[in-house]
Amino acid sequence: MVLQIFGDSISGNCLKVKWTADLLGIPYRWIEIDILKGESRTPDFLAMNPAGQVPVVRLSDNRTIGQSNAIILHLAEGSRLIPSNAFDRAKMMEWLFWEQYSHEPYIAVARFQVRYLKRPLVELDAQLVERGNAALALLELATQKAPFLVGDQINLADISLVAYTRMAHHGGFILTQYPSVLRWVRKIEDVLNLGVAD
Amino acid sequence: MVLQIFGDSISGNCLKVKWTADLLGIPYRWIEIDILKGESRTPDFLAMNPAGQVPVVRLSDNRTIGQSNAIILHLAEGSRLIPSNAFDRAKMMEWLFWEQYSHEPYIAVARFQVRYLKRPLVELDAQLVERGNAALALLELATQKAPFLVGDQINLADISLVAYTRMAHHGGFILTQYPSVLRWVRKIEDVLNLGVAD
Repeated sequence: MVLQIFGDSISGNCLKVKWTADLLGIPYRWIEIDILKGESRTPDFLAMNPAGQVPVVRLSDNRTIGQSNAIILHLAEGSRLIPSNAFDRAKMMEWLFWEQYSHEPYIAVARFQVRYLKRPLVELDAQLVERGNAALALLELATQKAPFLVGDQINLADISLVAYTRMAHHGGFILTQYPSVLRWVRKIEDVLNLGVAD
Repeated sequence: MVLQIFGDSISGNCLKVKWTADLLGIPYRWIEIDILKGESRTPDFLAMNPAGQVPVVRLSDNRTIGQSNAIILHLAEGSRLIPSNAFDRAKMMEWLFWEQYSHEPYIAVARFQVRYLKRPLVELDAQLVERGNAALALLELATQKAPFLVGDQINLADISLVAYTRMAHHGGFILTQYPSVLRWVRKIEDVLNLGVAD
């Protein structure tokens, strides 16, 4: 059985998995899970992932893995998307954990509230906006220094971080204020054969 | 030069690094960083970690790595604390990312607010309490099924998750309501040669 990806197409976390599989030529079947309709909270879904979060992948032996960054690490094992050098690998991991702790909870959550919960921009929590901008400022520093987040070619850190950064404007963040981030976003989109996010 | 760990002894994230190094017999020098005094926001510290977060390790070649889970993954590479089986390794990663996204932001943050910012328990944000309990409920399910979070021996998932779980009562969570979690905590504390958290 081919790899199954259970994901919601509106979710950057889910798209990371799709992009990684596409880039590595891994065949898969995409099963759309509409989180807004509660499809990640059904008994069947919770049996795959008790955390009730997308994405989840089901392997050919029926076992399942959750957490976007854990999934892409698994899919990319032994590939060029994970640096062979131990220090570079650690720096990639640093970015992956930073993404889930200091970036996604602000950039993705602001986007979700504005675009899908239809919350007016002016009603966004001030801390959400402040911390989202702090994350973008840190990315601006990093992308000024080098063309990729770690080393001299794309790896999982770029794929993971670009997912919500390229949609940051959905949550009211102004990417033109972070010109180096914007250049990096366009370059990673290009490698991933993505168009510019609407 | 020996490995340097820049950490605050009150931080579970920092203690993860200490415990991993201790368990693996990796020599290190601990440099105490008092986050309450702003010592993780000084120019010297930000030069090591622009995110201004502890822990940070400085390697013998002076290069630095941040993010607790990225650090312990680096220190434990090739050791018994990372499963050699690819699927088990992926499940360990799933726990590590879940810890930073769905556990630490509630369990550790509630503890920090109550114990260090002296916020009265009744003034804790309801969502913080609800999501912290949801995290403990998920851990209860997992620890009922097997003695360790992944496989049949301790690995980084247990070390990472136990860090703040064992101190959950500092934030008002009642661990006796999660008896299986409590048994698991005591077992991991035993393997790590820790006393019971006060």
